[in-house]
Amino acid sequence: MRFQLTDEFIEKVEKLIADDNGEALEALLKEYHFADIAELLEELDTDEATYIVKLLDSEVTSEILIELDDDLRESILDNLTPSEIADELDEMDTDDAADIIAELDDDIQKQVIGHIEDTTHAADIVDLLRYDEDTAGGLMAKELVSVKESWTVAGCVREMRRQAENVTRVHSIYVTDKEGRLKGRLSLKDLLTAHQRAHISEVYIPKVDYVTVHTEANEVARIMQKYDLEAIPVVDDEGILVGRITIDDILDYVKEEAERDYQMAAGISQDVEASDGLFKQTKARLPWLMIGMMGGLGAATIISNFEVILSTYPKLLIFVPLIQATAGNVGVQSSAIIVQGLANDSLKGHLFARIVRETTVALVNGISIAIIVLFISHFIFYTSYLESLSIGVALITVIILAAIVGNLIPIFLHRRGIDPAVATGPFITTSNDVFGIFTYFLIAKLILGF
Amino acid sequence: MRFQLTDEFIEKVEKLIADDNGEALEALLKEYHFADIAELLEELDTDEATYIVKLLDSEVTSEILIELDDDLRESILDNLTPSEIADELDEMDTDDAADIIAELDDDIQKQVIGHIEDTTHAADIVDLLRYDEDTAGGLMAKELVSVKESWTVAGCVREMRRQAENVTRVHSIYVTDKEGRLKGRLSLKDLLTAHQRAHISEVYIPKVDYVTVHTEANEVARIMQKYDLEAIPVVDDEGILVGRITIDDILDYVKEEAERDYQMAAGISQDVEASDGLFKQTKARLPWLMIGMMGGLGAATIISNFEVILSTYPKLLIFVPLIQATAGNVGVQSSAIIVQGLANDSLKGHLFARIVRETTVALVNGISIAIIVLFISHFIFYTSYLESLSIGVALITVIILAAIVGNLIPIFLHRRGIDPAVATGPFITTSNDVFGIFTYFLIAKLILGF
Repeated sequence: MRFQLTDEFIEKVEKLIADDNGEALEALLKEYHFADIAELLEELDTDEATYIVKLLDSEVTSEILIELDDDLRESILDNLTPSEIADELDEMDTDDAADIIAELDDDIQKQVIGHIEDTTHAADIVDLLRYDEDTAGGLMAKELVSVKESWTVAGCVREMRRQAENVTRVHSIYVTDKEGRLKGRLSLKDLLTAHQRAHISEVYIPKVDYVTVHTEANEVARIMQKYDLEAIPVVDDEGILVGRITIDDILDYVKEEAERDYQMAAGISQDVEASDGLFKQTKARLPWLMIGMMGGLGAATIISNFEVILSTYPKLLIFVPLIQATAGNVGVQSSAIIVQGLANDSLKGHLFARIVRETTVALVNGISIAIIVLFISHFIFYTSYLESLSIGVALITVIILAAIVGNLIPIFLHRRGIDPAVATGPFITTSNDVFGIFTYFLIAKLILGF
Repeated sequence: MRFQLTDEFIEKVEKLIADDNGEALEALLKEYHFADIAELLEELDTDEATYIVKLLDSEVTSEILIELDDDLRESILDNLTPSEIADELDEMDTDDAADIIAELDDDIQKQVIGHIEDTTHAADIVDLLRYDEDTAGGLMAKELVSVKESWTVAGCVREMRRQAENVTRVHSIYVTDKEGRLKGRLSLKDLLTAHQRAHISEVYIPKVDYVTVHTEANEVARIMQKYDLEAIPVVDDEGILVGRITIDDILDYVKEEAERDYQMAAGISQDVEASDGLFKQTKARLPWLMIGMMGGLGAATIISNFEVILSTYPKLLIFVPLIQATAGNVGVQSSAIIVQGLANDSLKGHLFARIVRETTVALVNGISIAIIVLFISHFIFYTSYLESLSIGVALITVIILAAIVGNLIPIFLHRRGIDPAVATGPFITTSNDVFGIFTYFLIAKLILGF
């Protein structure tokens, strides 16, 4: 029953496009879900994809366009006229339409909006464009079912049927006063079971979670997850109900955020996929490699400045990779735990207590590793007692310092309003590399007395 | 309006517990949402938290227990009798109840189940315990609204009202045949607008996405996200409707997976939080540090085996940290892109084409970095022409190799049925460290001819 995109199917579609056999193609694709067709389009070239978008009904293609990868959608839209784009937007929910229109150039935007048939829909979309994409206003859709508290249940059901036509899924019915201020909510279930002649004011639930248009997206996500909400109403500064955010938008948001954090931790500075081209990949990856290079050159400077080590204790250099790797790994571990704690809002207790705990963990890890390395260095690599001691003490110190640095940097960034996720990955690894090697040589200098 | 957990509030609650003033405490907490009380409990010690759980009504505490962190929940349940636990489970949806009961010891499990009042509920929970937690069976709840195709709309509304009492949120009404085999679905909206005397068989939508109890959790998540489903029915091997999975469970699942991948990339081998104790933290972190240590010792072995470098070309050692950092960073970048592509099922095209693209990207990055380092090494660190050349060529080679390795390892693991996320972080960094340094020295040997 499950759809599986096969090479045969793709070839069949490509052949129908090459033959300009629109009728047969339309008949073939009619069987498939829009999400499946979107998957197919990702495998075709832009012209073929455009052919299909122009061929099928905008009721279907509007859904397909929403599903597509940004890059492909952009190139398809480049091939459509403003009026064709407007037809697509006419079929979309306001939030999706606003997201897509925001990707277009300013002058095209204006032309497209002028071509949208439903003027209320157009006005709603334009209204949504005002909001920053990382706020509730940027996430919300205008489509919602709202009733006035003065109505009867029967009148409400009538009105609801009318409104529900524009709303894909009814999560909650929002209750407002005459001026449109949010007063409470009503579930479809409640409506089904309430007496027909009762007034909404008698049956609605006055307690309702809401956010304002300015609430930040991550706060919206936190609230909806914490209180297990499937939809949340959005009000403006006057308390007027202006939109609603549904759980599927939050799922997308949470996923995107997690992917972005993951990419940052892996040293990829922007959203990039395995299939992206040379330029995009290089742009996303070279910056972090350059930072790593600066770190490497920093380490080179430190090593060359400890000339005594190069000339008298070259064996200490054998353990530079170990020190470096350990410092990097500890730093990444510590910072990842903090970044995740900050993202989940689960970081509790006082900073000092956390540093003490982190130091204790680092001490245990450090001593475990130092003892092993101390013996191995002495008995396998034949370092002197003092050299081995230097390596062991350096390992413990470096692990503790890296753990504290890994802890403090994300917290510091967070407090300054900077996304702490930037502090993970190459950034923390690089700084710990340099710092770790410096600490290693300094301790060797103290112990060996040069 | 938003709840904010303050120190004053915590102290107030702690004082009421110390005074054993249950009445005042109950009155105080009545105002708050269960999710807020759960947040409060996380800040109290186990005895205090248990006091509150025993004090409040199980209608509220069952919800609180679901929200709690696993560790805290476990210690609270340790303080409750099997009959008290059963009271809590009685109030929970079957999926949550099964998750919690699965955490208990086998003998306690049996006692608890024996104490659950609602025997159907108990049987449903026991049934759910059979499934692996990473399958649709493990994710689903038994609570759903289902109607038979032979019923009328009016009869259906009556029956639905009855069933809906046990179901927190009605997403879809599932239609089955006499034997309970899933035939299709009906939206609440459809039911509201359909003629009262029509038969369900005339109005239901026969096309319905479903999964079987054996479908893997990540496949369920993929399907629900792809087709924008808010709930999906689950059938057994005979096609009998046995449960449903809702989008909020998928949101939790997606989040947990993303966090796990993130932690793996950061070298943390199990779910751990900043507030966890010494033992748990060490257990989660030391294993990867040990792997890093092995890598470091491997690097040490390589360096000490190239004695000529130590004695004749010590300047080459200055650049070991640079080579190591670059190899690690490139490997992590490449593998992260592949791991994310695999997780999103968005990895397309043939392996060979991808390797060619990856190599091209690596070549561009490699040449950019190599040229800079070549000049800096020669003019600032005074390496000879041939030494500089060795460093530059090594950088390009190492970057290309690390990119290919970073690409291939996750794909290889994935094909062998192993979660590719384990290949990121310290694992790939460590192997690339060792591999990178070896390549560096080998190239130096070839160019410098020792």
